Amino acid sequence: MNHRTIFFVSDQTGITAETLGHSLLTQFDGLRFRSVTLPFIDGIDKAKEVVRRVNLTAEVEGVRPIVFATFVHDEIRAVIRGSRGLLLDFFDAFIDPLERELDVRSSHMVGRAHGQKNQDWYSRRIDAMNFALENDDGQTVRNYEKADVILVGVSRSGKTPTCLYMALHYGIFPANYPLADEEFESGHLPGALLQHRHKLYGLTIAPSRLVQIRNERRPESRYASADQVGFELRSAQGLFRKFGVPWMDTTECSIEEIASTVLARMGLLDRNAADPERVESSEPGSGA
Amino acid sequence: MNHRTIFFVSDQTGITAETLGHSLLTQFDGLRFRSVTLPFIDGIDKAKEVVRRVNLTAEVEGVRPIVFATFVHDEIRAVIRGSRGLLLDFFDAFIDPLERELDVRSSHMVGRAHGQKNQDWYSRRIDAMNFALENDDGQTVRNYEKADVILVGVSRSGKTPTCLYMALHYGIFPANYPLADEEFESGHLPGALLQHRHKLYGLTIAPSRLVQIRNERRPESRYASADQVGFELRSAQGLFRKFGVPWMDTTECSIEEIASTVLARMGLLDRNAADPERVESSEPGSGA
Repeated sequence: MNHRTIFFVSDQTGITAETLGHSLLTQFDGLRFRSVTLPFIDGIDKAKEVVRRVNLTAEVEGVRPIVFATFVHDEIRAVIRGSRGLLLDFFDAFIDPLERELDVRSSHMVGRAHGQKNQDWYSRRIDAMNFALENDDGQTVRNYEKADVILVGVSRSGKTPTCLYMALHYGIFPANYPLADEEFESGHLPGALLQHRHKLYGLTIAPSRLVQIRNERRPESRYASADQVGFELRSAQGLFRKFGVPWMDTTECSIEEIASTVLARMGLLDRNAADPERVESSEPGSGA
Repeated sequence: MNHRTIFFVSDQTGITAETLGHSLLTQFDGLRFRSVTLPFIDGIDKAKEVVRRVNLTAEVEGVRPIVFATFVHDEIRAVIRGSRGLLLDFFDAFIDPLERELDVRSSHMVGRAHGQKNQDWYSRRIDAMNFALENDDGQTVRNYEKADVILVGVSRSGKTPTCLYMALHYGIFPANYPLADEEFESGHLPGALLQHRHKLYGLTIAPSRLVQIRNERRPESRYASADQVGFELRSAQGLFRKFGVPWMDTTECSIEEIASTVLARMGLLDRNAADPERVESSEPGSGA
């Protein structure tokens, strides 16, 4: 069985190297990888230590590791290039064409958060997270005026993780409301939701998967039974149709996919895009 | 003033294109960018619509947009390449060297979550998020046995967003405990914390920044006063030193930077790296 060690190395957090590296590796189904993340490699000595580790891995495993990197400092990258691994540096490949296009030299500075713009973006994400926490699971319906989107769906359909992800990653103010017996019996949505009908987005999930998820929580319960789950999901989809709520099936989706689908369909990616501060303030995804 | 429109385009979520694109653009300080994210461009017609939009932007702004992309499908990328924007496709640049190195053709399939492995990783992140929510802000100290890390610090030093980020992004089980008058007056940490001293990590922040953050919450309060903030931060750092708790200053850091610093210093990136399922299960960062 093919087995490779993958290093994600950066003079910053390594999150960008990981994100792109993982995305690329999903294109190679069936291979086995082991991953090692080494962030904050911001000096020559640390870089030499990485080289030793990569070389040792190459020796022990008999196959050279793949090193995904995002180095801002050319000198550090040069040290890593001396390792026996295959170095794929995402910055190295794209900084040049960007410098030519923008007709300006890049700073070659580790992109630390700095200045008021970043603090604004930090505050925005924190406020969004607090909004998501305060408006989770229908605990209050009073703040929907301020919400960007209100997710609706049955228990364990993915509402809370999606809301927290949208808040932390995109600075979106999300609320969510659980559909339960009250709605199913009345065949109605609460007035607080209908008042903001254009903000509603429904999540649904395959019955078999929801049975599995609920059984992990409360094994053998009515809550986790196929009958109850089937009833709730049918009722929820009935409500989505009746009130014209757009919805998606989350069964095969990662949290990232659910979040970006919701935002794309609700036109919220464009709204953010219209904010010229958004890129300059360097998030999401800075601290490579 | 230089102003460019940046498109992030993908046949998947666009998150990878955004993450790497933003990281690259932070290297070009002082330029102004406007960003537009267009996810799920998974057909020729949608791609042609993107081309129209990019070309219109080029015409209106008199300068060609930059298009960061992660296309798995060569035919769709070829359509986008016909636009007047500068196309920088991260997959295009790296799939070839990876195919040569791994000696296998990539699937050229949109890397949708699929199969049990992804569901395991999804469940892990959800469990981690629920753990973070249940063990936020010291609301209980009974589950520290199960925690991977316990953040300690004064109110508004960044504990909650860091915990939620570590849970959602890394599948880490984090708890956090707020240091307050009880600890400051006794000069002691609770027994529940000391029992797990090796899991403790402290967050601190510059007094002036904390005054600002707390004033946004409770303007003109004692809680937000320079005296109170100074007292709390000095006391917290005294406790860190007294009990040998490692700590970092979060003032200039993004949430990503705080999270990856904590994990690196606590040796938790290596622990995850040792899990061979981690890459294959395609998160974090799949759904490019």
